[in-house]
Amino acid sequence: MIIVLKKNATEKQIKHVVERLKELGLKSMISRGIERAIIGAIGDEDILRSQPLGVFPGVEKVMAVMAPYKLVSREFKNENTVVSVSGVEIGSDKLVVMAGPCSVENYDMLFKIAKSVKASGANMLRGGAFKPRTSPYAFQGLGEEGLKYLQQAGKATGLPVVTEVMDIRDIGIVERYADMIQIGARNMQNFNLLKEVGLSRKPVLLKRGMMSTIKEWLMSAEYILANGNFNVVLCERGIRTFEDATRFTMDISAIPVVKRLSHLPIIADPSHATGKWGLVTPVARAAIAGGCDGLMIEVHTNPEHAFSDGEQSMLPIKFKAMMKELKPVARAVGRTI
Amino acid sequence: MIIVLKKNATEKQIKHVVERLKELGLKSMISRGIERAIIGAIGDEDILRSQPLGVFPGVEKVMAVMAPYKLVSREFKNENTVVSVSGVEIGSDKLVVMAGPCSVENYDMLFKIAKSVKASGANMLRGGAFKPRTSPYAFQGLGEEGLKYLQQAGKATGLPVVTEVMDIRDIGIVERYADMIQIGARNMQNFNLLKEVGLSRKPVLLKRGMMSTIKEWLMSAEYILANGNFNVVLCERGIRTFEDATRFTMDISAIPVVKRLSHLPIIADPSHATGKWGLVTPVARAAIAGGCDGLMIEVHTNPEHAFSDGEQSMLPIKFKAMMKELKPVARAVGRTI
Amino acid sequence: MIIVLKKNATEKQIKHVVERLKELGLKSMISRGIERAIIGAIGDEDILRSQPLGVFPGVEKVMAVMAPYKLVSREFKNENTVVSVSGVEIGSDKLVVMAGPCSVENYDMLFKIAKSVKASGANMLRGGAFKPRTSPYAFQGLGEEGLKYLQQAGKATGLPVVTEVMDIRDIGIVERYADMIQIGARNMQNFNLLKEVGLSRKPVLLKRGMMSTIKEWLMSAEYILANGNFNVVLCERGIRTFEDATRFTMDISAIPVVKRLSHLPIIADPSHATGKWGLVTPVARAAIAGGCDGLMIEVHTNPEHAFSDGEQSMLPIKFKAMMKELKPVARAVGRTI
Amino acid sequence: MIIVLKKNATEKQIKHVVERLKELGLKSMISRGIERAIIGAIGDEDILRSQPLGVFPGVEKVMAVMAPYKLVSREFKNENTVVSVSGVEIGSDKLVVMAGPCSVENYDMLFKIAKSVKASGANMLRGGAFKPRTSPYAFQGLGEEGLKYLQQAGKATGLPVVTEVMDIRDIGIVERYADMIQIGARNMQNFNLLKEVGLSRKPVLLKRGMMSTIKEWLMSAEYILANGNFNVVLCERGIRTFEDATRFTMDISAIPVVKRLSHLPIIADPSHATGKWGLVTPVARAAIAGGCDGLMIEVHTNPEHAFSDGEQSMLPIKFKAMMKELKPVARAVGRTI
Repeated sequence: MIIVLKKNATEKQIKHVVERLKELGLKSMISRGIERAIIGAIGDEDILRSQPLGVFPGVEKVMAVMAPYKLVSREFKNENTVVSVSGVEIGSDKLVVMAGPCSVENYDMLFKIAKSVKASGANMLRGGAFKPRTSPYAFQGLGEEGLKYLQQAGKATGLPVVTEVMDIRDIGIVERYADMIQIGARNMQNFNLLKEVGLSRKPVLLKRGMMSTIKEWLMSAEYILANGNFNVVLCERGIRTFEDATRFTMDISAIPVVKRLSHLPIIADPSHATGKWGLVTPVARAAIAGGCDGLMIEVHTNPEHAFSDGEQSMLPIKFKAMMKELKPVARAVGRTI
Repeated sequence: MIIVLKKNATEKQIKHVVERLKELGLKSMISRGIERAIIGAIGDEDILRSQPLGVFPGVEKVMAVMAPYKLVSREFKNENTVVSVSGVEIGSDKLVVMAGPCSVENYDMLFKIAKSVKASGANMLRGGAFKPRTSPYAFQGLGEEGLKYLQQAGKATGLPVVTEVMDIRDIGIVERYADMIQIGARNMQNFNLLKEVGLSRKPVLLKRGMMSTIKEWLMSAEYILANGNFNVVLCERGIRTFEDATRFTMDISAIPVVKRLSHLPIIADPSHATGKWGLVTPVARAAIAGGCDGLMIEVHTNPEHAFSDGEQSMLPIKFKAMMKELKPVARAVGRTI
Repeated sequence: MIIVLKKNATEKQIKHVVERLKELGLKSMISRGIERAIIGAIGDEDILRSQPLGVFPGVEKVMAVMAPYKLVSREFKNENTVVSVSGVEIGSDKLVVMAGPCSVENYDMLFKIAKSVKASGANMLRGGAFKPRTSPYAFQGLGEEGLKYLQQAGKATGLPVVTEVMDIRDIGIVERYADMIQIGARNMQNFNLLKEVGLSRKPVLLKRGMMSTIKEWLMSAEYILANGNFNVVLCERGIRTFEDATRFTMDISAIPVVKRLSHLPIIADPSHATGKWGLVTPVARAAIAGGCDGLMIEVHTNPEHAFSDGEQSMLPIKFKAMMKELKPVARAVGRTI
Repeated sequence: MIIVLKKNATEKQIKHVVERLKELGLKSMISRGIERAIIGAIGDEDILRSQPLGVFPGVEKVMAVMAPYKLVSREFKNENTVVSVSGVEIGSDKLVVMAGPCSVENYDMLFKIAKSVKASGANMLRGGAFKPRTSPYAFQGLGEEGLKYLQQAGKATGLPVVTEVMDIRDIGIVERYADMIQIGARNMQNFNLLKEVGLSRKPVLLKRGMMSTIKEWLMSAEYILANGNFNVVLCERGIRTFEDATRFTMDISAIPVVKRLSHLPIIADPSHATGKWGLVTPVARAAIAGGCDGLMIEVHTNPEHAFSDGEQSMLPIKFKAMMKELKPVARAVGRTI
């Protein structure tokens, strides 16, 4: 931690800071420049992280030197983590595609979609049984019934299932029916939920909050790892910006940035990022070329009648065409799909 | 709902949309312009809100005509709502100031702060027992012990207490000890939590999400009202922008915008919005001049040793000076403090 | 400048950085922490500012210690600057209100507006002769004819005139007719234009770019001062965010932040910030309570027929009512209006 | 244009709007819903675009139906435009790579870089002679001397040259020495500059403003086309968001969005978007996979001593490696490089 002092900081003020650092078990190294002094705090930076040194008299600002995350970092573990979801490996050379409807609406529809995405090369089945909806009047999901359908459709097609949990009270049943637990963007900083899935033995898909920096996202993953669950896959799904031509703005650079900072696998969700099915294919191609480990794609047999997110759902025939287009792109970056 | 068709939309495509609207119980009014046709859907817009009309062939875009919220709107209830929190009225001519430490750290400190803010004119006591922290390694709050201290300090000083709940499982104990339940910014779209506090009989303070539009914020309030709890107070606490001179950007216009759209009271939190105690007073003055119904302010007797948010906490003596400065501003806009 | 080294930086890499610093005339102070070393560069930080130390092998990141601006800073000049515009002082206890139409449309309309805002207490006349318009097909302003009308209306009413210049080639004629030159938000980083108005003897009103940080804004002001013109007034006019209930988001905290960092006066433009005349009064009140030195307000006698920005223009009668409302707010913060 | 009326709008108010539309030469179609009436204005929407219908009594909001741009749109010209820059075609199946230093520093360095990027497969030479710098104290470019070096290095290597113009007064000399004129991000809404390059016969590279929506960007291109110059290439270079891990956020979806809306070619600049040379390759791969027509890349033989942007400049050897990596990605999307 670097403590920059004000131009007119007194010796007494400098001493006061140094003493506080000493109290906390850190050494100080004072560097007196022409215009102002700077104190370098030597020792465990984590001790200082929540210390409000910025309010000490004479202090102008405090700058952290190190990243606040540990277990998720490349410094902690240098090799890429490969997360296994009921036999499907995420983070290896083979890209993983999770496809399915936004919401589970009924068994027949789900099975039909599952069969078709499997045939086109998908590796996992996605579908929402609990839906976070902006409006209290919108369809909120089928709940446990939806989970059952997911499990059945997954078994029938041989696709492991990923589904969102929004409520700590539902973790138990989600664990029972699903192969992977999804934490949605709106719950990325629901810290109690993170702690609980950290105690689960199921792998977790952690979506980035639409308002969250990469650093905060990694800190949320840290919550899960710190509670014992190292099987975490990150999912970039677009951030909120001023641009309104798309629903969110896919932060494509987040993929290589995360790859440098963390050993965790990262996938991309072009359906939510763009909000328009017609943009899903080019953005999916870009995400693969950018280095992601897989994709999450919304597919619906009848988008015109979808209960939610119809505008961003691909028809199975479009999904099939996309999967074909993605193959050479994956190959171009040394991966398969 | 207005459905704008593509330039080259066919009669068959127009008919297909009209038939779908009919199926849903709405009438259509087709307006053929020089370049393209437009369909006005006449009837209950809410039926259409989650219909993916944008994916129908020939459709270019769909534009909503009405706001999606109902119970929180001025159209539903024109007069200002006044929320009573154990005798303190929020939304009347008298502004309400909630003050206290970020986190409850121990009883003595809390009592000392409570006594001092009361003496300076605060009307309610704030303090966190459950703390949403970006880092799993940071202080997470005293939990129920903190709630007890809050209740004791509140009783000892005659100040009703507001405190955050982050977990559905904690609603029961928070209801037991506190006078008002706070939903924090990171949980503004934790819809299950919203539903549960909607079932509570305690008044709710709903903070705006740092990346939430005013519309989404009002929809989150709608969740609480739709579940039966009409005692909701909104709190503007800054949104996330590119500017990094302050922790967040206080959206001052949100105050008059909310006042026009909704009957609910709205307060402002300049401590979180700015992240720097030295900016709290001018921004608090601005919020009052902008028309808010009260303030939430962080105060700490020893910010240098605060467990959290020390940089934005005011010393009691600064708080006292601010309260004095706020009086003429309140008077200038026809309020008292 | 603080240079943070990578965990595994070698002694050779550290030496390489130190030698480069020496070449540039700076001393190094190396602080070896438990996990990594840090180099403090002692000497003139400006020399380092554009040095790409971040690409040196072994370097993780480089952190600036000091602000990059000089002449605009409180460290350079501690007392508030008061800018005089043909007798009207900006930055004193008396707030300055610049009012008038968005565009100058014809003389009669302009004179009528000028007379009415003067009667309501405005101190300066604003009006655009050169209009930056998003569309090439929109009204682009009357040019020199508009400037003449401005000068005439200003003289007839005794109000100094402020008007925007968009093109270096127009500075000469704008200087001839106007009392103060406005640099619009879209030109805040048109550095050649800044240099040229820096060479002018006319006071300059520098609007903040809609996506510019406060630091960048002050650097743009620095361009003007560095070229010899110290008569600069800043104008906060809203930044671009994700919120779309208002045209821009008034960054109210920018007012006290600028006041701390700089000696230059700062005014606020609630008309552009909100984009809706109905929000101008509460946001104007907030800006005054937040500590600004004046306001810029759009007024039009017939907003329904305004050539531009009709939606944010106040009728003279509304402007008059607002001026009355602002008086007690100004008084509450020790100012007059 | 759709005009949504307030719930309580009177017949007189509706009539007043209809009459104004009639005055402007448009027909009205009134649709009376259950809750409110809506007026569809039939006729040329451009007439209405700058009409402040939102301020008419009884009007709640006004919604545009059509895009405001014409000449740049696919509706105006359906086939892709191919822009020829001294023999290099931009917008064909063959991707175009413009590479070179941020600033021209001297002839030797420039020639060395030009030769090396040419050998690695670049098609054009980039380099700044006029530099837009946030600080007045930073290196501002060599001016005409730099342009001469560019022309010489371009001729010596057979690479057409692209360079930025910031000032209308410099267009003449830039035209003399360069093959393509670049408008930088900070000047994207310098409308007078756009008009002037619209009158030029040189092709124009129009960078997206960091704060500009895709719609505004296309409107800026419209300025150039409307003045007679149809040889415009767009360049996505990252937008400003809250994320600070990268210098800007590359808006990857902007590529397919622009491709759908416009016939103009679009390239991507991963150097400026990321601000870090280590992220350039993955983001360049993503941009190609996303469908762009080319890239602009900063290359420097000695980034440690670069006068500007050293942190985002690649060494020639890294550039060579990247070009090799890009080949299979281009091929995967049916292009060559």
